Amino acid sequence: MAKKFIICIDLGGTNLKVALLDLNYKIKDREILSTRSFMEKDDLIQGIVHSVNRFIKYNALSKAQILGVGLGLPGPIDAKRGIVHFFPNIPGWKEVALRDILRKKLSLAVYLDNDAKLMTLAEHKLGAAKGYRNVLCMTLGTGIGGGIIINNKLYRGFNNAAGEIGHLPINEKGAPCNCGALGCLEAYVGNQRIIKEARKTFKRSITLEELSWLAIKRNRLAIAVWRKTGGHLGFALAGVVNLLNLDAIVIGGGVAGAGNVLFESIKQALKDQAMSVQAGHVKIFKAKLGNEAGLIGAAIMVKEGL
Amino acid sequence: MAKKFIICIDLGGTNLKVALLDLNYKIKDREILSTRSFMEKDDLIQGIVHSVNRFIKYNALSKAQILGVGLGLPGPIDAKRGIVHFFPNIPGWKEVALRDILRKKLSLAVYLDNDAKLMTLAEHKLGAAKGYRNVLCMTLGTGIGGGIIINNKLYRGFNNAAGEIGHLPINEKGAPCNCGALGCLEAYVGNQRIIKEARKTFKRSITLEELSWLAIKRNRLAIAVWRKTGGHLGFALAGVVNLLNLDAIVIGGGVAGAGNVLFESIKQALKDQAMSVQAGHVKIFKAKLGNEAGLIGAAIMVKEGL
Repeated sequence: MAKKFIICIDLGGTNLKVALLDLNYKIKDREILSTRSFMEKDDLIQGIVHSVNRFIKYNALSKAQILGVGLGLPGPIDAKRGIVHFFPNIPGWKEVALRDILRKKLSLAVYLDNDAKLMTLAEHKLGAAKGYRNVLCMTLGTGIGGGIIINNKLYRGFNNAAGEIGHLPINEKGAPCNCGALGCLEAYVGNQRIIKEARKTFKRSITLEELSWLAIKRNRLAIAVWRKTGGHLGFALAGVVNLLNLDAIVIGGGVAGAGNVLFESIKQALKDQAMSVQAGHVKIFKAKLGNEAGLIGAAIMVKEGL
Repeated sequence: MAKKFIICIDLGGTNLKVALLDLNYKIKDREILSTRSFMEKDDLIQGIVHSVNRFIKYNALSKAQILGVGLGLPGPIDAKRGIVHFFPNIPGWKEVALRDILRKKLSLAVYLDNDAKLMTLAEHKLGAAKGYRNVLCMTLGTGIGGGIIINNKLYRGFNNAAGEIGHLPINEKGAPCNCGALGCLEAYVGNQRIIKEARKTFKRSITLEELSWLAIKRNRLAIAVWRKTGGHLGFALAGVVNLLNLDAIVIGGGVAGAGNVLFESIKQALKDQAMSVQAGHVKIFKAKLGNEAGLIGAAIMVKEGL
């Protein structure tokens, strides 16, 4: 029997990543397109279809060798029915039956889910949370995404909306959040917020990369910004740990690149704020699979039929 | 075959309730003792043993007819190994292997767990959350207890410490909590805190019962106190709902007696603060089984061998 493969797509606001993986989740081929080069919803769908077909052709595969196509998408998804509710950062998508559209155009099995949930699957099966039974994974970025593993399985909640750790509120009269509520974690540790804080501290504009680099070089001001960020994160995570008595928390996304300073302040705030039994047990890890977590998670979803 | 029964014990800081239940969870006999009449740990254990033996004798039962003894206890419990870690409000208990002690003295199967977890089991199987798959149950009192049902099963977390909704923090620079942390929900809606708030509002001392009664009579000041309490609760629950995409939340305990005013403000705050998909789905219920929830939950634990 010919060897089988999975084609995975990780759609972000900036990049559209496509990759061919074998059933051991090794990436055999990949390409990165610019999401913004597709002006309309239909262009983007057509771009995905062309890319999948190119991968099959240039790798000399037959469609029978493709176990399925898995998509990680940046917004709320009805994974059971294969519907995109909307994308907060890509206009023109509203209640799109993307699974059925792609199945028809590709004649392949298609699976879709929210990108943070797929990152969670990947980090639990092959990454930082491997072997841990009850886990929260979170990605730090413009938005804060998350996913929860309960008893070794992805926990979706009623309509696949579980995991929104970015919208755990931490101050009743706190900063307004993009979701319309007050004091959500995301309003304190989203990229824009950190950049704003850094600009105030340095009295000039500064990128997150520079801020991370300065912290690694032990710049006092940069360290202060990351400590404050870690304090907010640890405070929110203390509540989650008290509530869920988790085994592990995995933190990924660009900001996690700030490294030790950030992680040490998260751990300290968590220890100060969480109950001793829960705080004493939980491990805090940096995500291990980096930019590939979404693609690998999509492959796990296809292979395990999740 | 002779009919089988379960003997259940619900230990509180004030009362020790003992009851005989049949396998349909109907209470056939009961007694209430004063916890404080037992001065020492060993007296309390002996009191439980005598009470169980009395129930068997006066109901003309044989030990073979007792499926087991179930205890609901006011503190952290290692349910698997049957160990009481400690009781916050009853001195003298520290790492007590209560299950083994009682098994030996009674020659009966013995099960123990935290009282809020047993209330959760009861409300899910027979009470307000019957038929709901993912549920948070909470009891409002001096402390705030809680339990979580995930996929129709009690979720314990790593060391049976999950469910501590009272220690979900809601303000980073908030009021100090008995647990040593800052801004926990319990520091805003625990009984002592509500009484303090009411005393400030009414400029005299006032009981929770009177405060509830006044609210039902539409007293403006009492309503304001309950609205504020409901606001804190709804804010915290919004975070839980965003994180867990729950089907239902059940609220019990003395304070829940304040009725509509409290529940309406919880619902309003939740609606204002939670994301629309999650908030639109979750139901908020008043607990249904009242004071019997602990006893019924203990019987469920024994019957289902949980």
